[in-house]
Amino acid sequence: MELVEKLLSGNKRAAARLITLVENKDPKAFETLKEIYHKSGNAYVIGITGPPGAGKSTLTDKLVKVFRKRDKKVGIIAVDPTSPFTGGSILGDRVRMSDLNLDPGVFIRSMGARGHLGGLSESTQAAVKILDIYGCDYIFIETVGVGQSEVDIVKTCDTTIMVMVPGLGDDIQAIKAGIMEIGDVFAVNKADRDGAKRTAREINMMLDFSKSDWRPPVELVVAIDNKGIEELFEQVEKHKSYLEESGQKEVRRIENCKNEIVDLVQQKLMDMILDKSSKEEMINKLSKEVAARKTDPYSACKLVLEKLRTT
Amino acid sequence: MELVEKLLSGNKRAAARLITLVENKDPKAFETLKEIYHKSGNAYVIGITGPPGAGKSTLTDKLVKVFRKRDKKVGIIAVDPTSPFTGGSILGDRVRMSDLNLDPGVFIRSMGARGHLGGLSESTQAAVKILDIYGCDYIFIETVGVGQSEVDIVKTCDTTIMVMVPGLGDDIQAIKAGIMEIGDVFAVNKADRDGAKRTAREINMMLDFSKSDWRPPVELVVAIDNKGIEELFEQVEKHKSYLEESGQKEVRRIENCKNEIVDLVQQKLMDMILDKSSKEEMINKLSKEVAARKTDPYSACKLVLEKLRTT
Repeated sequence: MELVEKLLSGNKRAAARLITLVENKDPKAFETLKEIYHKSGNAYVIGITGPPGAGKSTLTDKLVKVFRKRDKKVGIIAVDPTSPFTGGSILGDRVRMSDLNLDPGVFIRSMGARGHLGGLSESTQAAVKILDIYGCDYIFIETVGVGQSEVDIVKTCDTTIMVMVPGLGDDIQAIKAGIMEIGDVFAVNKADRDGAKRTAREINMMLDFSKSDWRPPVELVVAIDNKGIEELFEQVEKHKSYLEESGQKEVRRIENCKNEIVDLVQQKLMDMILDKSSKEEMINKLSKEVAARKTDPYSACKLVLEKLRTT
Repeated sequence: MELVEKLLSGNKRAAARLITLVENKDPKAFETLKEIYHKSGNAYVIGITGPPGAGKSTLTDKLVKVFRKRDKKVGIIAVDPTSPFTGGSILGDRVRMSDLNLDPGVFIRSMGARGHLGGLSESTQAAVKILDIYGCDYIFIETVGVGQSEVDIVKTCDTTIMVMVPGLGDDIQAIKAGIMEIGDVFAVNKADRDGAKRTAREINMMLDFSKSDWRPPVELVVAIDNKGIEELFEQVEKHKSYLEESGQKEVRRIENCKNEIVDLVQQKLMDMILDKSSKEEMINKLSKEVAARKTDPYSACKLVLEKLRTT
C-alpha cells in the first residue's frame, strides 16, 4: 500500500489521510494498522487533561515549544468532546489555532467521536499509533473534561499532566477525588490568580496519601506568560526517567495494552448488540415493554445476552 | 421480603438500605428490584449537570426548596466522580452538606462508582427506581463533569438542566458542542459575574441551530442569593408539560429504557470479559504480547471475542 510507504518515510499528508480513514472506521485502515503495528512503540505519549477553563491548549502549545527547542518531532491530538446523541462532534474538524501549525516538525489534529460509545477512544489510540510510526518523538493528547471518556484516553499515555486552576470552588474536592490517580505531574495554571497557592497546597495534601513510588510534583505555571513551563518540562522528563529506570514504563505499557484490548472488545460487542439487525429490533421491542412495565430492564438484559450467545 | 414492604410504605431507612445493597451489587437486591419494578414510573426525574465549579449543588438545593414549598416529596442523588483505577470513590460516603438533610420530605444520597466501567450508571438507575417506588414525586440526579459517564446518567432523566457559568474561557465552545443536545433547560449560574450575559447569548446562539420542537430556555440565576430559581422552576414545569402534552415523555422513556438495557448488557459483557477466570488470564497474556509488538491489539481483540463466543 503506497500510503504505508509514505507514512514510513515521514510524509505528513499520509499520516493525516490514515487518521481520517481510521476516524471513518474504514476496515482497510485497521488492516493496515495491524500490518505496521510492530513498527510502533517509539514515541513517548503525554496526556494533558483537566477541567474546562484550565487553559490546557495554551499550556500544551507552550510546552510543545520547549520540546521543539530540543528538536523533537511532536504530534498533538486535541480530543474534542462528543455530541453523544447524534454521535457527531461539532468541533471535530475545527482547526486548532496555534502558530505551531506552521512548524513542519509539529503535527496537529483535532479529533471528535463520530461513532457511539467509546469510538473516540478507539480512533484516538489508532491515531497515536499512526503518529508514532510517522516518526513523532513525543505525542501529546489533550482532552477536555473530567469523565470516563477522558480517563479512557489518559490510559493510553506514558505521562499524564493534570492541569488545575484556582477558583473551581467546592468541586475541586470532587475533581481531586476523580483525578488523583490519573495525574503523574500536576500543573496549577493561571498561578497569578488569587488562590493558586492554596489550590497547589490542597493538591499536595491529597497527593500525600498516594502510595505510589512516584510522588507527583505540583508546579505553579502561568502558561500564557510562559512562566513555569521549563520547570514543567523538567518534571515530565523526570517522570519519564523514573518510568524507564524503575521498569514501570514496561508495566504501564502492558497495562495500557490491556485497557486497549478490553476497550476494543467492548466496542465490537456494542457494535454487535446494535447491529441494526434482529438484535436492535429485539431491544426496541423490549424497551417498549420495560417502559410499559410489562417487564423489567434486568430480565430484558438477560434475554439480549441469551440472543447474543446463540446467534 | 420485609424490606420491600417497608419501602412500599415509604420507609426512608428501607430505601437507604436497598440502595446500599444495590451499590454492593448484591444479586438479591436486583431480584427484589425485578419484582417491584412494575410499581415504578411515577416519579419525575430531573438531571442537573454542568462543568466543575458551576455551583450545581447550591442550585439543586435552592431548586429543591421550591418543589418542597409545593409539598412535593423529593429525592436527590449526588453522583460523585469515580476513582477509575481503583474503582472506588473517595467521596462515595460523603454526607452532602445541606439543611435539606433535616427535611423528612427529602431523601439525599451520594453515590460513587465501586465497580468498573459503567457500574455507576447501573447503580444510579437502580437508585432512581428505588426512590420512585419509595414515593418521591421528583428525583434529582446531580452530576459533576462533562464526560461519557455523565451523559449515560443524564440519559435516565425526563428533564435535564445544564448549569453553565461565566468565565470558562475557550473551553466553553468545546463544552457547548458536547452538551448541546443534553440540556432541556439551561441555567447560567453566578450571573452577577462579568460575562454572564455574554455566556447566555453564546448558548442561545448555539441553541438556535436546534432542530427539536422544544427550544431550551436559558435562565440567568444566582443560586447562592436565590435569584432566578423560581423562574428556573417554571421552565422545568414548562418542559414537563411539553413532554406530557406532546407525547414525547413516553418516547423519551422508551429511549431511556433502551439505553438502560444496552448499558446493562454492556456491563454484563464486561463482567464476563474480566471474570477473573481464563479470559482475564488470556487478556493478560495478550497484553504482554501486544506491548512487545508480537501481535497487535486488533488481532488480540478478535481472539478474545472468539473465546467469549465459544465459552
